[in-house]
Amino acid sequence: MTVTVAKGFVAAGVKAGIKKSGAEDLSLVVNQGPLQAAAAVFTTNRCQANPVLWSKEVIKDGQVAAIVLNSGGANCYTGPQGFQTTHATAEAVAQHLGVAAADVLVCSTGLIGEQLPQDLLVAGVASASAVLSASEESGKNAALAIMTTDSVSKTSRFTSNDGWSIGGMAKGAGMLAPGLATMLVVITTDAVLTSAQLDAALRNATRVSFDRLDSDGCMSTNDTVTLMASGASGFTPEMFEFQDALTDLCKDLAQQLMHDAEGSSHDIYIEVVGAASDEDAVEVGRSVARNNLFKAAVFGNDPNWGRVLAAVGTTSAEFDPYNIDVSINGISVSKLGQPDQPRNLIDMSGRRVDIFINLNFGSHSATIMTNDLTHAYVTENSEYSS
Amino acid sequence: MTVTVAKGFVAAGVKAGIKKSGAEDLSLVVNQGPLQAAAAVFTTNRCQANPVLWSKEVIKDGQVAAIVLNSGGANCYTGPQGFQTTHATAEAVAQHLGVAAADVLVCSTGLIGEQLPQDLLVAGVASASAVLSASEESGKNAALAIMTTDSVSKTSRFTSNDGWSIGGMAKGAGMLAPGLATMLVVITTDAVLTSAQLDAALRNATRVSFDRLDSDGCMSTNDTVTLMASGASGFTPEMFEFQDALTDLCKDLAQQLMHDAEGSSHDIYIEVVGAASDEDAVEVGRSVARNNLFKAAVFGNDPNWGRVLAAVGTTSAEFDPYNIDVSINGISVSKLGQPDQPRNLIDMSGRRVDIFINLNFGSHSATIMTNDLTHAYVTENSEYSS
Repeated sequence: MTVTVAKGFVAAGVKAGIKKSGAEDLSLVVNQGPLQAAAAVFTTNRCQANPVLWSKEVIKDGQVAAIVLNSGGANCYTGPQGFQTTHATAEAVAQHLGVAAADVLVCSTGLIGEQLPQDLLVAGVASASAVLSASEESGKNAALAIMTTDSVSKTSRFTSNDGWSIGGMAKGAGMLAPGLATMLVVITTDAVLTSAQLDAALRNATRVSFDRLDSDGCMSTNDTVTLMASGASGFTPEMFEFQDALTDLCKDLAQQLMHDAEGSSHDIYIEVVGAASDEDAVEVGRSVARNNLFKAAVFGNDPNWGRVLAAVGTTSAEFDPYNIDVSINGISVSKLGQPDQPRNLIDMSGRRVDIFINLNFGSHSATIMTNDLTHAYVTENSEYSS
Repeated sequence: MTVTVAKGFVAAGVKAGIKKSGAEDLSLVVNQGPLQAAAAVFTTNRCQANPVLWSKEVIKDGQVAAIVLNSGGANCYTGPQGFQTTHATAEAVAQHLGVAAADVLVCSTGLIGEQLPQDLLVAGVASASAVLSASEESGKNAALAIMTTDSVSKTSRFTSNDGWSIGGMAKGAGMLAPGLATMLVVITTDAVLTSAQLDAALRNATRVSFDRLDSDGCMSTNDTVTLMASGASGFTPEMFEFQDALTDLCKDLAQQLMHDAEGSSHDIYIEVVGAASDEDAVEVGRSVARNNLFKAAVFGNDPNWGRVLAAVGTTSAEFDPYNIDVSINGISVSKLGQPDQPRNLIDMSGRRVDIFINLNFGSHSATIMTNDLTHAYVTENSEYSS
């Protein structure tokens, strides 16, 4: 059901001919109300794609009628012509649905620096508008049409005993990094919530889910996570209850993104505890997650814990460098600045690898999720635009 | 001649049995004076190896009689036992040469978290002391014995018409990153200079050479660059003349390190101009140099300039994101936030790749040197400690 699990939403995913492969490449998700409340968070990259520039204006009033997404091109660094393409796409949606273009979010994903075919986008919007439905298949097609190098589509859902639901779909397999991993995410709910409530809940949820996924340290120009509420369930949940469900759903989607990261052979969870602040814990975890030598070692099932500490040592977090505990898959390998258990006790042959780092300096913690650096990652990313 | 090109220096490189391969693994370079002035710069990693902790104390008075270096183990995160090994190595040098241990620098390189064999080190110091000489072969052996994953030894030399010289040797092939690339470098001169003059000149030189090499974004725990002056030429050069020669020699060694970086197939020069400050230029260049997607694209001879701009956009440098010029190998690919020349005009099949970025925001510039991300890099670094 994905985004159509929430009442009040219809969706479609169609083949607009933008992708060379001929696969689905245009998604449309429409909020039929009664509410049209929405919130969104965007990439913190300063070089932003045209759809991001557009959508940041659209979201300002917290009202969104529909979101249109395409794969097959990022529409980034495409200048005034590219912005005009984004605008025309929103206008096409507005015309078919009888809504204002200023209430239509636009997302694009793919190669930077190439113009999108405006005629194909506009025709694709017409096709999608004609097949909008609340069916499970429509939700599934919408999730398929946003894929780029993803090998599977990512969806998640939650239904409360009180009768309200949340549904989500996500894409992202490379350029997964902080300030949002590279991704497009659309989340829908039929709970009765204001745009201010959605905004607060979405920021809380992304901070501990997508923002803690750092697959390859590379930040995209197009990241957008959107949350829309139709109010169609007629039910207003307690905020803590909605927050918990939304955060869990975002974590689930983030883990799916990690599992499918380009060329990865290991999912790595880096848990940092004993930090003086949440920020310190995140900084330390992210520094390890971005260390190519560490990531290559994990690919080789090599418990090279010195590379963990070398990465920790590059941060400005508070700690005594010679009082850090490091464990790999439950085996304590270093304490008090020296080796503890022999590294050959560690089995890294499974897909999941757990790195545990105790800074012994406070009570804050964070877990960063990342992947290993593999031959397949290099292959995929050396052939992307050619 | 390497380090023995400067009068007053003798050297040796021997097989101490530390490396499993049985290759040369212990170097000794001795300053026979009349001066024993020296300066050194160390890794800025907060997790520092025992020889770095030791050598930082030794250098404080600006007097160094000898430097002993081993490959086959980093002696980092080896605790009190590891520090004792470093101390014993310095004491062994002191005893054989009749100098104070507090005037003996120690450097180690290799795997983190494993104890070094103290008996082999002490015996190796005895062997090296017995064969010290100013010959070309001794200098060459000293350069060989510090190699780890290096495929060739790196040496450089300069001789002034006034009769004074500078010689240098370097190792480093992985973990090449800021605040020194991962490296051990020993530079000798027979010019008559004080330790304060050496210190200023060395910091100026490293700032624009080794500090602008960022092969894989990973910072070592063991980096040490040392400059020693014997005064044996009896000549005091003008400081600007010495500085120029030293900077050129450091740049030459840095380029040799880049050429031999683990698994690399391209040398990438990222020239950033039009920056508001040198710091901005360095930050932008380094951000591109560390972008795995960009580095993988270069491996694939793929002029994916969007990844350059996406990396620039993650920095805090001053610029207008939609007024940045990007060229690859002389072809202008993006201007004013949109494509310029077609990317298929670019030939990236050569080893050297030039990325030119004009921020159009000031008059400062910097060039960062890096390498591509290849299958061979992943292979070498997934098998390092096993």
